[in-house]
Amino acid sequence: MDLRADLALIRDAALRAVDPGQAVRRVLSCDSGVLRVSHEAWPIATGGRRLLVAAGKAAVPMAAEAAALLGPALTSGVVITKYGHTAGYSLPARLEVFEAGHPAPDAAGLQGAAAVVRLLETTTPQDLVLVLLSGGASALLPYPVEGLSLDDLQAATLALLRAGASIGELNTIRKHLSGIKGGQLAALSAPAQMIVLVLSDVVGDLLDVIASGPTAPDPSTFAEAWAILERYSLVEQAPPAVRLRLVRGVAGAIAETPKPGDPLFRTVHNIVIGSNRLAARAAVAEAERLGYASLLLSTFVEGKAREVGRVAAALARSLRVHGDPLSPPACLVWGGETTVTVRGRGRGGRNQELAVAAALGIDGLAGVAIMALATDGTDGPTDAAGAVVDGATLSRARSLGLDPYASLDDNDTYPFLTATGDLLVTGPTGTNVNDLLVILVAPDATL
Amino acid sequence: MDLRADLALIRDAALRAVDPGQAVRRVLSCDSGVLRVSHEAWPIATGGRRLLVAAGKAAVPMAAEAAALLGPALTSGVVITKYGHTAGYSLPARLEVFEAGHPAPDAAGLQGAAAVVRLLETTTPQDLVLVLLSGGASALLPYPVEGLSLDDLQAATLALLRAGASIGELNTIRKHLSGIKGGQLAALSAPAQMIVLVLSDVVGDLLDVIASGPTAPDPSTFAEAWAILERYSLVEQAPPAVRLRLVRGVAGAIAETPKPGDPLFRTVHNIVIGSNRLAARAAVAEAERLGYASLLLSTFVEGKAREVGRVAAALARSLRVHGDPLSPPACLVWGGETTVTVRGRGRGGRNQELAVAAALGIDGLAGVAIMALATDGTDGPTDAAGAVVDGATLSRARSLGLDPYASLDDNDTYPFLTATGDLLVTGPTGTNVNDLLVILVAPDATL
Repeated sequence: MDLRADLALIRDAALRAVDPGQAVRRVLSCDSGVLRVSHEAWPIATGGRRLLVAAGKAAVPMAAEAAALLGPALTSGVVITKYGHTAGYSLPARLEVFEAGHPAPDAAGLQGAAAVVRLLETTTPQDLVLVLLSGGASALLPYPVEGLSLDDLQAATLALLRAGASIGELNTIRKHLSGIKGGQLAALSAPAQMIVLVLSDVVGDLLDVIASGPTAPDPSTFAEAWAILERYSLVEQAPPAVRLRLVRGVAGAIAETPKPGDPLFRTVHNIVIGSNRLAARAAVAEAERLGYASLLLSTFVEGKAREVGRVAAALARSLRVHGDPLSPPACLVWGGETTVTVRGRGRGGRNQELAVAAALGIDGLAGVAIMALATDGTDGPTDAAGAVVDGATLSRARSLGLDPYASLDDNDTYPFLTATGDLLVTGPTGTNVNDLLVILVAPDATL
Repeated sequence: MDLRADLALIRDAALRAVDPGQAVRRVLSCDSGVLRVSHEAWPIATGGRRLLVAAGKAAVPMAAEAAALLGPALTSGVVITKYGHTAGYSLPARLEVFEAGHPAPDAAGLQGAAAVVRLLETTTPQDLVLVLLSGGASALLPYPVEGLSLDDLQAATLALLRAGASIGELNTIRKHLSGIKGGQLAALSAPAQMIVLVLSDVVGDLLDVIASGPTAPDPSTFAEAWAILERYSLVEQAPPAVRLRLVRGVAGAIAETPKPGDPLFRTVHNIVIGSNRLAARAAVAEAERLGYASLLLSTFVEGKAREVGRVAAALARSLRVHGDPLSPPACLVWGGETTVTVRGRGRGGRNQELAVAAALGIDGLAGVAIMALATDGTDGPTDAAGAVVDGATLSRARSLGLDPYASLDDNDTYPFLTATGDLLVTGPTGTNVNDLLVILVAPDATL
């Protein structure tokens, strides 16, 4: 068995399973006047319009596939993606396309969001709105409520991040400053039927978190948003318009975001069509096909990359030394997304850091390889997707005079892995369902 | 299913499997003039002596069991354990018993080690030496080479620890300053037959690391020991006698510790009779008996307790939400030993910290419980063995106004878990095979 060749096949299979166009095609079909999504059918020949809203880094391939499937049934729509992400696809002229800023939202994003709002403002119960969401949609659909500027939003976000607020806390604030997030896109398009196909870039596929949940009920409240400002002592520091908005919300002078149980969601159908778990399951299936006994351990793995890498190594070592939990040839897969607290001045990414930590833990083990992969092909601010390390990675490093601990301490794993020949470069994959870890152990202990 | 009751049964089964006396009885037997260890047999009726050396925190229960099994066949021996660890057992008078200092070695330990050396110096090829090793044996058997004092050893150890040396580096130095460690106990007793029964307190059961490897070949060298002093700039600072010893060793003026391949090990039989994996397998077997589909993931888990706890939660969540890798009722077990970098001023231990971090990750999940257990019953400098947390731990904490993040940041998880009712107190268990983690998920999502 060639572990690195097999890891490449497993990687390809995983990425194919979450290809944005394929994911749309897998669930969506349209013929004889009936639109089908998975097992549900919507008659669309009885009047009304078929509107499309696509937002996110994969908006164009998803929209292209949907447009091809719907054909002339598609009335019109708006597509918003990141700069440079429209190349190579052709979309029908009745779709208005915007390229906008990401991760920092910009004026182009404002224009795109305004076009979405205009499109949905005039819907009727006969209309059907197909929404295609993918990673990045939150930044690409900025829609500050009246009285707030993009600068106000940015200032509030930055202050919260600097104060150490969590992503969940940040989202609570964002949803209460936006006219689209927190279920409000769904509210806008009511009473039309809404079908939302989601390519999830959030660990756990939480619909109220992905893209800041524009089509999902929002469990968070103005009161919680205000409490977050208080918690981080940002009441004084927040832009006046932000403060005013939240105060008025707490006082009940502004309507809350739509909550769980709101009847408006009766006509909204959110479906996750691509996710980390789908990719992970495809990886497991491919590994099985290649002859490895395989398990999917979890798709919820989070934590510090360096420490998570040690646990990955502990699993690999267990397979090799004891055959726990599987006898080799064996494969363990998990998914999620780790984090790196940047302290050094080097180059690297979370998957590269995880891989170097894992390499330390499998040093000297024969017939063991570990792949840490960012499914979007971009691991941290580098052109690498991650790395594939094995039991000889450290001996290669030692013979080059490289210190793995120093590379971790300086967050400088990119040059380390380049030198050991373990860097994994795929280029942008066109999708994003967080990260995958694949551990392969050969039947016998030969490197 | 009562998850907490089942976790108690699983814990008991795991600890039973690594009870020191039971572990000795499982492999050792003696009748009709034949001593049997597992599947190998040694005729002992043909002359020669049967000598016993037991060292470690479990030395007394192990020696008591061996003495009972050997009966009059046992000629004499030396037993060295920690202060207070002889109570409750009776040993034959022909065994000389020492209580000594641990973790800091003391003069009583020196006396005990000297008695061991005296016992083994006069062995013949007809003699059989039974060695029983358990956790703590390294500190309990101090035997500085001629010219070195216990103070010299302590000063060198402390300087290395302060400089950030690893346990592996520390052991390399120790072995080259001792007359017992690094295979030298085996060398002393040659040409006698030696049977070594080991209760392992080292992750991975490395024979050259457990008790500093007194009966195992030593792959490390004087040159490496010297390089470690250089690496940490301790050449000037090291006690003159330590420096002189290492310099003479590098120069070839002193014999090296016995190396892998040394013919003296042909008559030495090291057998791990109790280990983390044995306990983990017993836990899995008990969970299976209770009706949980179960897997042993690894017995090599190391890393920062707080981060490892997040991975544990990711596994629990996966079982609950997706049935990956097993459909509930399900159980995942792993073993190893995590670490805590103490920054705060609170009370706690690695397993308690792991448990609080895990509780954060399973907050709100029904039918999920996680046990983090120090198998010796002593987690950090507390009277707790660890904790059992579940999906309601955090809501109990919230209702008491407790902040889990603050308890982690201040390394103050003991009072937190006391308040939530999740602390696990077993008292000293009499054994030590590192830590176990057990995740239980009930068939349905009811707490």
